[in-house]
Amino acid sequence: MKTTILTIGDEILIGQIINSNASWISDILSEHGIQTVWHLSVSDEKQAILEALDLGFSRSDLIIVTGGLGPTRDDVTKLALASYFQCGLQFSQETYELIQEIFAKRNIPITDAHREQCLLPEKATLLPNRMGTAPGMWFQEGEKYLASLPGVPYEMKYIMKNSVLPRLRTLERLIYRKKTIRTAGIGETSVAELIEPKLAGHDVSIAYLPSVGQVRLRLSKTGTDVSQVEKALENAVRDTLPAIEPYIYGYDDDLLEQHIGALLLQQKKFIGTAESCTGGFLAHAITSVSGSSQYFRGSIIAYSNSLKQSLLGVKESSLNEYGAVSSEVVREMVTGALDVLSCDIAVAVSGIAGPTGGTETKPVGTVWIAVGSKEEIITEKFLFTKDRVINIKYTAIYALVMVRKFLMGR
Amino acid sequence: MKTTILTIGDEILIGQIINSNASWISDILSEHGIQTVWHLSVSDEKQAILEALDLGFSRSDLIIVTGGLGPTRDDVTKLALASYFQCGLQFSQETYELIQEIFAKRNIPITDAHREQCLLPEKATLLPNRMGTAPGMWFQEGEKYLASLPGVPYEMKYIMKNSVLPRLRTLERLIYRKKTIRTAGIGETSVAELIEPKLAGHDVSIAYLPSVGQVRLRLSKTGTDVSQVEKALENAVRDTLPAIEPYIYGYDDDLLEQHIGALLLQQKKFIGTAESCTGGFLAHAITSVSGSSQYFRGSIIAYSNSLKQSLLGVKESSLNEYGAVSSEVVREMVTGALDVLSCDIAVAVSGIAGPTGGTETKPVGTVWIAVGSKEEIITEKFLFTKDRVINIKYTAIYALVMVRKFLMGR
Repeated sequence: MKTTILTIGDEILIGQIINSNASWISDILSEHGIQTVWHLSVSDEKQAILEALDLGFSRSDLIIVTGGLGPTRDDVTKLALASYFQCGLQFSQETYELIQEIFAKRNIPITDAHREQCLLPEKATLLPNRMGTAPGMWFQEGEKYLASLPGVPYEMKYIMKNSVLPRLRTLERLIYRKKTIRTAGIGETSVAELIEPKLAGHDVSIAYLPSVGQVRLRLSKTGTDVSQVEKALENAVRDTLPAIEPYIYGYDDDLLEQHIGALLLQQKKFIGTAESCTGGFLAHAITSVSGSSQYFRGSIIAYSNSLKQSLLGVKESSLNEYGAVSSEVVREMVTGALDVLSCDIAVAVSGIAGPTGGTETKPVGTVWIAVGSKEEIITEKFLFTKDRVINIKYTAIYALVMVRKFLMGR
Repeated sequence: MKTTILTIGDEILIGQIINSNASWISDILSEHGIQTVWHLSVSDEKQAILEALDLGFSRSDLIIVTGGLGPTRDDVTKLALASYFQCGLQFSQETYELIQEIFAKRNIPITDAHREQCLLPEKATLLPNRMGTAPGMWFQEGEKYLASLPGVPYEMKYIMKNSVLPRLRTLERLIYRKKTIRTAGIGETSVAELIEPKLAGHDVSIAYLPSVGQVRLRLSKTGTDVSQVEKALENAVRDTLPAIEPYIYGYDDDLLEQHIGALLLQQKKFIGTAESCTGGFLAHAITSVSGSSQYFRGSIIAYSNSLKQSLLGVKESSLNEYGAVSSEVVREMVTGALDVLSCDIAVAVSGIAGPTGGTETKPVGTVWIAVGSKEEIITEKFLFTKDRVINIKYTAIYALVMVRKFLMGR
């Protein structure tokens, strides 16, 4: 089944919000073997929506529409759908009762705007929304299907999982398999040069998905025979892995921070961080993993030099002699953190995130990272970019890469 | 000038990366009065790209293409463009020298893959890329224009700013003005109910752009007469502001964390944070602002109860009697943070981010936040969602909203 994802909203076309819904929907569809052929975003105008529906159905069997269903006046999706499917609107008592139920729990009064949300096109089947007030809708005409969902991500996801995917599972038969190999600490071109010779004889699709400090390599295969598709993919993955083994930290949805967490749990070790330039982002990355309290104790964010001294015991002489961004200082930060945070492993970062603060010898993007235990401390110097936010992300990723090396004995 | 933004890449359609480029481009185009009418994403296949170009030019005068130009084998954009504009490929010495220059600085050898990147369609004008190896290209046929840019965001942005926008400024005349009003601590429906009566007589477009804990309200106006457009928008803004004044923290690109920073600078105060459930995200939000070292000292991330005691002086009796997620404990965390971080204002958060750890009386999503100085501490309890990442974000935003209230004397 070919699918178009249609996102409605001036806020998308004006660039004020990023279309994360389309990517989430495509991802979950592809896991179900359903191919997305188009992402299309149009404005909140009836005519634009009608044209997009025509185009979508000319190239696909399924359209998933998101956005344009909220309680405020910039919403015309429902009217466009009623017009496209040639029917009127009717009051949906079922929707009204759902909203009443949600609002009673939260102790909020129902307004006229919410009552208007209960008017649905007559040909729509209600897809219940238990996370908010905008109802999902399902349309079907012959072999063409359309799901209309609210734009708020967690409401959209709830309806996709509970109402749309179960319907699609019964409709679809094409086989699609993918395997994503996750690497850190190596660039896209280098990954390509290492693996492409290994994949010469294999008939699979390859995509390189770079992000800050990481490259995900996706191998995929589509076909009609499950065992053929799976065999082809399996062989390609088997021949690829050895070439990039030292850089692989996981597969598919694995995250580097989850991988580190699993290693720490396995080794029964607690970690803590001492941060300067990352300002808490490294601790945030570690604690974004559910269950991280089982291996994370805490952090000292010492932005000022005086806190580096008072909280982490960094020597004034080291700060004067080598500067805050130096091997010596991150080493002393690790020693201090091991002590005050009572942890087995500490990671410390100090750098010049920018855009100001750079010097001739230490330009913006210069970062020192140290990882260590009571027995051993390793340090490394990096030169990232000129961009503050990117530098913070790079530093956190490379700190995790160094923690990984440390935990695995390199 | 009407514009289509065409994103090329299987990685988009399979949902493995989010299309942030399209939103960034639309945003900067709209600031230049250039309307985006479509976002379109298609796969890395020549046929799909050719169809998309046809469609794009049938509805717009300008197509901005991103993606599909990297050094790896999933790139067919250049071939499709050569075919669309009916020309061959030729080796671009200018591009080759640019790559040589960049690589010499980084001490990296040039590979065959990079040499291949220097083959460009003959009708393309080179748009130099000083941030990476994939060149930008500009095509023009009659009144139709096309810019092809690499998918790596900072490379794309560099070429947009330095080569594409200067070209567009000389081509465009339509007037578009917008004003975005940024609020925090109030929901979308409530904003709508407060302002819609005030906007009844105004002929402007309204959009509500909600994100976690915040709503941006965008008023916009398009026309041909500058002073008419600006007057209409100005009047609408003037009539809207009073209705939602207490919730407004800024306009357009202002960020809540920048606003807090400006208030702190103005009052010559230093802030610090004591965090449990946010795990460093609140400090990260504050320090993501350039120049934050002028008002931010540092943080204690005390995930474990023992660190809450040893680093922040939280009393064991308070932890036992009220639990870590309580008004008493966040109050003591503020007192401790004021002391050990030597700051004038401290903010403390403790909550149950989830997905586990909830109880009957303190379900997942329960968060206590305290903000205070040596003179006064205020605390507030919140109940957010069941989602860990969303709860972390909500907590940080509401902590900043409370800091704002505190600094402004409510």
